Amino acid sequence: MPDLPKTQKAAVKVGEGSDAKTEIREIEVPTPGPGQILVKINYSGLCASDKSLLHDEWAAGGLAMQPQTQGIAGHEGAGVVVAVADDVKDLWKEGDRAGIKWIASVCRKCEFCTNGVDECHCPKQLNSGFSIAGTFQEYALTDGRYATRLPDGVKDEEAGPLMCGGVTAYVACKRSAVRPGQWIVLPGAGGGLGHLAVQYAKAMGMRVIAVDGGEEKEKLCRKLGAEEFIDFTKTKDVVAEVMRITTYGAHGVIVTAATKQGYETAPNMLRPGGTMVCVGLPKDSSVIAGASPLLMCLKKLNVVGSVVGTLKDVEECLDFTARGLVHPSLTMGTLEDLDRFCADMDAGKLPGRACLKVAA
Amino acid sequence: MPDLPKTQKAAVKVGEGSDAKTEIREIEVPTPGPGQILVKINYSGLCASDKSLLHDEWAAGGLAMQPQTQGIAGHEGAGVVVAVADDVKDLWKEGDRAGIKWIASVCRKCEFCTNGVDECHCPKQLNSGFSIAGTFQEYALTDGRYATRLPDGVKDEEAGPLMCGGVTAYVACKRSAVRPGQWIVLPGAGGGLGHLAVQYAKAMGMRVIAVDGGEEKEKLCRKLGAEEFIDFTKTKDVVAEVMRITTYGAHGVIVTAATKQGYETAPNMLRPGGTMVCVGLPKDSSVIAGASPLLMCLKKLNVVGSVVGTLKDVEECLDFTARGLVHPSLTMGTLEDLDRFCADMDAGKLPGRACLKVAA
Amino acid sequence: MPDLPKTQKAAVKVGEGSDAKTEIREIEVPTPGPGQILVKINYSGLCASDKSLLHDEWAAGGLAMQPQTQGIAGHEGAGVVVAVADDVKDLWKEGDRAGIKWIASVCRKCEFCTNGVDECHCPKQLNSGFSIAGTFQEYALTDGRYATRLPDGVKDEEAGPLMCGGVTAYVACKRSAVRPGQWIVLPGAGGGLGHLAVQYAKAMGMRVIAVDGGEEKEKLCRKLGAEEFIDFTKTKDVVAEVMRITTYGAHGVIVTAATKQGYETAPNMLRPGGTMVCVGLPKDSSVIAGASPLLMCLKKLNVVGSVVGTLKDVEECLDFTARGLVHPSLTMGTLEDLDRFCADMDAGKLPGRACLKVAA
Amino acid sequence: MPDLPKTQKAAVKVGEGSDAKTEIREIEVPTPGPGQILVKINYSGLCASDKSLLHDEWAAGGLAMQPQTQGIAGHEGAGVVVAVADDVKDLWKEGDRAGIKWIASVCRKCEFCTNGVDECHCPKQLNSGFSIAGTFQEYALTDGRYATRLPDGVKDEEAGPLMCGGVTAYVACKRSAVRPGQWIVLPGAGGGLGHLAVQYAKAMGMRVIAVDGGEEKEKLCRKLGAEEFIDFTKTKDVVAEVMRITTYGAHGVIVTAATKQGYETAPNMLRPGGTMVCVGLPKDSSVIAGASPLLMCLKKLNVVGSVVGTLKDVEECLDFTARGLVHPSLTMGTLEDLDRFCADMDAGKLPGRACLKVAA
Repeated sequence: MPDLPKTQKAAVKVGEGSDAKTEIREIEVPTPGPGQILVKINYSGLCASDKSLLHDEWAAGGLAMQPQTQGIAGHEGAGVVVAVADDVKDLWKEGDRAGIKWIASVCRKCEFCTNGVDECHCPKQLNSGFSIAGTFQEYALTDGRYATRLPDGVKDEEAGPLMCGGVTAYVACKRSAVRPGQWIVLPGAGGGLGHLAVQYAKAMGMRVIAVDGGEEKEKLCRKLGAEEFIDFTKTKDVVAEVMRITTYGAHGVIVTAATKQGYETAPNMLRPGGTMVCVGLPKDSSVIAGASPLLMCLKKLNVVGSVVGTLKDVEECLDFTARGLVHPSLTMGTLEDLDRFCADMDAGKLPGRACLKVAA
Repeated sequence: MPDLPKTQKAAVKVGEGSDAKTEIREIEVPTPGPGQILVKINYSGLCASDKSLLHDEWAAGGLAMQPQTQGIAGHEGAGVVVAVADDVKDLWKEGDRAGIKWIASVCRKCEFCTNGVDECHCPKQLNSGFSIAGTFQEYALTDGRYATRLPDGVKDEEAGPLMCGGVTAYVACKRSAVRPGQWIVLPGAGGGLGHLAVQYAKAMGMRVIAVDGGEEKEKLCRKLGAEEFIDFTKTKDVVAEVMRITTYGAHGVIVTAATKQGYETAPNMLRPGGTMVCVGLPKDSSVIAGASPLLMCLKKLNVVGSVVGTLKDVEECLDFTARGLVHPSLTMGTLEDLDRFCADMDAGKLPGRACLKVAA
Repeated sequence: MPDLPKTQKAAVKVGEGSDAKTEIREIEVPTPGPGQILVKINYSGLCASDKSLLHDEWAAGGLAMQPQTQGIAGHEGAGVVVAVADDVKDLWKEGDRAGIKWIASVCRKCEFCTNGVDECHCPKQLNSGFSIAGTFQEYALTDGRYATRLPDGVKDEEAGPLMCGGVTAYVACKRSAVRPGQWIVLPGAGGGLGHLAVQYAKAMGMRVIAVDGGEEKEKLCRKLGAEEFIDFTKTKDVVAEVMRITTYGAHGVIVTAATKQGYETAPNMLRPGGTMVCVGLPKDSSVIAGASPLLMCLKKLNVVGSVVGTLKDVEECLDFTARGLVHPSLTMGTLEDLDRFCADMDAGKLPGRACLKVAA
Repeated sequence: MPDLPKTQKAAVKVGEGSDAKTEIREIEVPTPGPGQILVKINYSGLCASDKSLLHDEWAAGGLAMQPQTQGIAGHEGAGVVVAVADDVKDLWKEGDRAGIKWIASVCRKCEFCTNGVDECHCPKQLNSGFSIAGTFQEYALTDGRYATRLPDGVKDEEAGPLMCGGVTAYVACKRSAVRPGQWIVLPGAGGGLGHLAVQYAKAMGMRVIAVDGGEEKEKLCRKLGAEEFIDFTKTKDVVAEVMRITTYGAHGVIVTAATKQGYETAPNMLRPGGTMVCVGLPKDSSVIAGASPLLMCLKKLNVVGSVVGTLKDVEECLDFTARGLVHPSLTMGTLEDLDRFCADMDAGKLPGRACLKVAA
C-alpha cells in the first residue's frame, strides 16, 4: 500500500441528543489488524439509523453510539480495498471493490453464525458506526471475512445505499412471503426505503400498492412499478381503499415508517394469512408492532421483524442492480452536508436516499 | 332412520353477560336439509370459547351468539350419524361416527376454501354454537361436507375435546415452526389447552419447557413429557429462567393464556428468529399481541395467530390419539354441569378439559 | 334451460394405436346428474396428452381411454354453463362462464382431497377425456364442485389451453422453487408448454434460459421474456453453454419434452441444490427421470414430478392472463382439424398451442 | 505444545483396486499452517466411503484418493486439539475437543459458502481422506474454521462415527420432509447408517418402517424405535407390505443401500407427494436414482440427493446424542483392524458402525 496518506477527513459527532452535530476533523488513517481490510470510502449512504444514532434517539432503548466509534457514524460504505491483513489475503487483494455494512463483523462460532440464516443475530457482532468507527471517514477498517464484494455493473454511489437501505428493502420483501401475483402494500413507498421496496417487490412479481402523499410521489411510484397508488392526502380511509382493491386485504404489508400510526394501521390491511413486516424503528418506545389477539387469530396473521440481511442477501440485492432492475434514487452530497441532510430527513423532505461523496 | 325421537334435551342460554346461565329444555329434533347430516352427540367438550360466548365476553369485539343458535352453544361434539341428506349420501351413511367442530361449514367457493390451507378463513363459514346451534343438544345438524370422520381407537369422550382443544393445540405447535430438538415454552402447560400442547410438542420431537403453578401441575406436565418445569409461584423471573435453560431464548412460545401479562411476557422468552403463537383470546380489548419494533426487528421475531385447524389438521390430530400418544385429561360431567364448569373455568379451577355426556 | 338442442357434434375416436382417427358424429346432449353442470364448450385446447390418448401411446403404462368416454377426448374446455343440477345451484347458475380440466372430479373424502395440496392425487378422481367424456363435444358434463370459474379479462379461446397447458407450465414453475433473480432453463421453450413456461417464469421474476431451435423460436422466446436463448441447432454442447451463462449451473430446469434425451441431459444443467421438474411423459417406457446417485448426492439435486394443478392453481394461472402477463400463442382450428393437428404435433410442426372452436 | 512426538502411526493405502490394503507406517507429525489446528485423533469411525476410496471403487466416476492424502483415508475423527495456528486462536485453544469431518475446509467466499445452506457444495472444498490426509493417523491437521466443537456428554468413540454417519442419517431424515406422525421407510435399517436413521427419525416424531433381514436386525430395529419391521428374507413383496401398512404408500424413504435394486424399488413405496432421499453411492455406474416420468408426475414424487451436512447440522446431530436419544451401535477395533473391517463390510457382516481407537 504505497501511497496511503497518514491522515484523513472524518465527520465526527459533537454534542448530545437532538442538538448533536457533526464536525469535519482530520484524523489518523488506521492500519488493518488481524482479519481486517482498509477500504477507501468513495461513497457512503446516509441511513435514517445514522441520524437516529447521531441524535441519540434510541439511547433510551439502550442503543447509543459507543466510544470505539470515535463519533464516526455511517454504515453504507462503498469503495476500494487499499490494505489487507496477512490472514485474509486469500479473501482480498488491494484494488478489489468492497462494501461496508451495518454488520461489520460476526463471531463465526455461535449458533447464529453457523446455522446459515441468522448470522445477523450473532450476539458478538460489531456494527459500523455503532460499536466501531463507521463510513463517514475516507478510510475505514472492516472485517475482511464479512465485507461485501461489489460486482461489475454497480457503481459505488449506488452500492453504498444498497449496503443497508437496499438489503433492508429486499429482505423485507422476501420476509413478507408474498408470492408472484399477490398484493403487497408499501406505506411510504416514495421514501428512502419505500422506493427501493417498490422496485424489489416489482422484480419479484408482486403486485404493488404504493401509499404516499402528493403527485410527485405518485409519479415516482408508478414509474418504479407500482400498480396502484393511494394518496393519503386525498384518501380518507386508506384501509378501506386497500380492501376495495384487494377484496379480502393484501397478502403483505411492509412498515418502513417509524411511526405509531404506521404500526397501528398496517395489520388491518391484511387478508387472512397475510404478513406484516416490521422495519421502521420509532423513537416512541410505547409503540407495539402487532394486533389484537382476536385479529391475529381469526385472520391467522403473521407479524415479523426484519433487519438488514446476511452476506448472501446483500449479494443477491446487488445483483438486481447489476441487472438494471433496481436503482436507488439519490440525493447527492458530501460529508459537509450530513447535518443538513439529517434535518431534511427529520422534516420528511429528503427525496429518495442520501448519498455522500467521501474520499476525494 | 327408524327410531329417532321427536324431541330432545338441549342446554339453552338464558340471560345476558356474566349472569347468563343455561337451562335444560326439551326441543324438537331437527331434520337434515340439503348437504346436512344429523349427529347424535354422545359427548361434547366444553371449550373456554363456549364460556366466553355464553357470557357475552367478546360481544364488544363483535362476537356474540347469533339468534340462529337458539341459544345452544358447543363445538366439540362426537357421536354417531343418524340421518343423512340425499346429496351427501356419497359421503356419509347412518352409523358412521362423526365429529362436529367450531367450523361447521365453509362455502367451498372462495379463495380460502380453494387454496388448500386457509379454509378456516372462509368469510361465509358457519360456526357451531355461534352462528348455528351447537353441540349442547342430543341431536345436532352439521354440514356433511365438513364434518369429521372419527377413526377407530379414539373414543367419543376423547374425540369431543379434540375437535377444538386438540386441533388448536396441535396446529399451534405446527405454526410455531419449532423443529425436533428445539425448545418450546408452554405457559399454562397444565391447563386445558396447555396439557394437550405438551403432548403434541413432545410427539413432534420438541423440547418442552412447561410453565405453570403448583406441584400437581408439575407432576402432570412432567408425566406428559415436559423436560423442564418452571413454577411461576416459586420463580421470580420466568423469562430469566427460560434464558438460563436455553442460553439464547426459546425457539417458540405458545400463548394459550387469555391474559395481558401472558402476551406481554412471551416475546421476551424468544431467541432470535423465534416464534410466538397467539391462541388465547382475552376479554380485555386493549391487549396487543406483539412486541416493540426494536425487539421484533433486532431479534427477527415472528408473531403469528392460530385458530383451530383445517379438516385435514383435525384428522392428523385424531391420529395422534389413535396411536396412543395424546390423551386429553378430562373432567367429566353432563349438560346439567355446564354452568358449574363455566364458573370453575373462570376461577381457574377446572382441571384439564371439561367433557359432557350429552345423549343418553 | 329453454333452448338446449337434443343432439350435438362430437369428435369420436375410431380405430386403435397410431392409426386411430377421430370422426365427427352427432350424439345426444347429456343431462346433469347430481353434482353436475352442463357446459357449452366454446373452445377446447388440444393437449399433447389428448394425442397420446387418442393414439394409445401410454396403453402399455396402463393409461388408455376408458369406455365411459365414448371415445371423446379433450380436457381444456372453456364455455358457458347451460344447465345445473339442483344440489350445486349454490355454486353455479346458468350463464356463468366455466372451464373443464383434466381432473373433472375428486372424491372430497380422501386424505389427498382434504390435505389442501394434493387433490390432484385423489385415487378416485375422474379425468376428462380419459375416464369420462371430454371436451371435444359441444356440450360436456362436469362436476360442479370442481369446475373452474373463468374470470373477466380471459377470453374462452385463451382459457381453454390454460386449463391444462397453462396450469401445467405455471405449477411446474412453482415446483421448481426457483426464486426471483435465479436461473431457470426451459428446453423446448418455443413449444406449446414451453412458451407458456417462459411467460410464467418471467412473471415470477426468474431469469429464463430458453433452449430451442431456429430463428423464429428465438424471436418468440426473446419476445416473451427469455434473457438468454440457446439454439440447439447451432450449439454443440448445450450443457456447457448453460454452465458458461450461469457459472455453477441453473437453479432449475423444466423438462417439458417427452424424450429420453431431454431427461438425460437436464440434471447436468443444474447447480448444487438445483431442481429438475418432470412434466413430459414419453412413450418410451425405458426412460428414467433422475440422475446417478453420485450426481444426485454430491450436488444435492432435486428431481420432482408435476402434473396439472389444484383448483386454486388454475385460478392463479388464469389471473396472470387476466392481468395481461401471459398469453398462449394459438393455432386455431375446429373439431375437423383434430387429426391434422395431431399429425403436426407428432412432426413437431405445430406452433404454440392448438385450440379448437367447438360449439357453433 | 510441549509434548508432541515427532512421529506417529498411520494406516497408509498400499496397492490398487479391490486388492488394495492398508499398512501401518511411522510418519511425521505435521505442523499447523495458517488457519489450521492439529487434532490428536482418539477415535475414528470407518465409513463405507473410506472402503470405497481405499478400494478405488469410484475411480471410474472420477473420485479417487488424491496424492496429497499420502494414502491416509478416514473422515470421522474425534479427539483433542494439540496445536493451533495463530490466526485461529480466537476459535480454538489447546485441550479443546474437536471433530474432523468429510468436509475439512471450505472457501468461505463462493455463493455456496455464503448462502447459508449449501457450504457442502463449495467447489473448492477439501475432503479428509480424499484430497487431504484423513483421520487414520494419530495426529491430523484440519481447518480450524471448519472443525467441529464436541459437546459435553458425547464421548469421542461416539462422536467419531457421528461426524459422517450420524450427520448423513440426520440430514437425510430432515431432507425427507416427513413430518411427525407420517411414515418413513428405512431399507437397511439395521445397518451402519440405517440404525442411526431409525433413531433420528424416531426422535423427530416419524413413524418408522424398518426393512432388513433376520431376527437380530428386527430386535435391534424395534429396540431403537421402529414401529414396523419388514423382514425381506421372509416377505415376498416388500412394496406390497409397505402399501398394506400405509394404505397409500410411505411419505418418505431413505435409500442408504448402495445397490441398483435399492434404488429401483424405493420410488414404488411412496404415496403421492412422497420423497425418496438418495444417500448410498453404488459402484455400479449404470444405476439411476429416479423413476419413470409417468410415476414421477402422476404421483408428484420428489427424489432428492443428500450428502453429509453443514457445520450446523453436525452440531444439531451431536446434540441428539448429548441428550441421550441417539447412540451409534459400534464395532470397536484399531487401525490394525482396518482391512478386516473393510472385508466384513463388503460381506455385509459388519454390525452397526465400525470405530477405531487411533492414538494411544
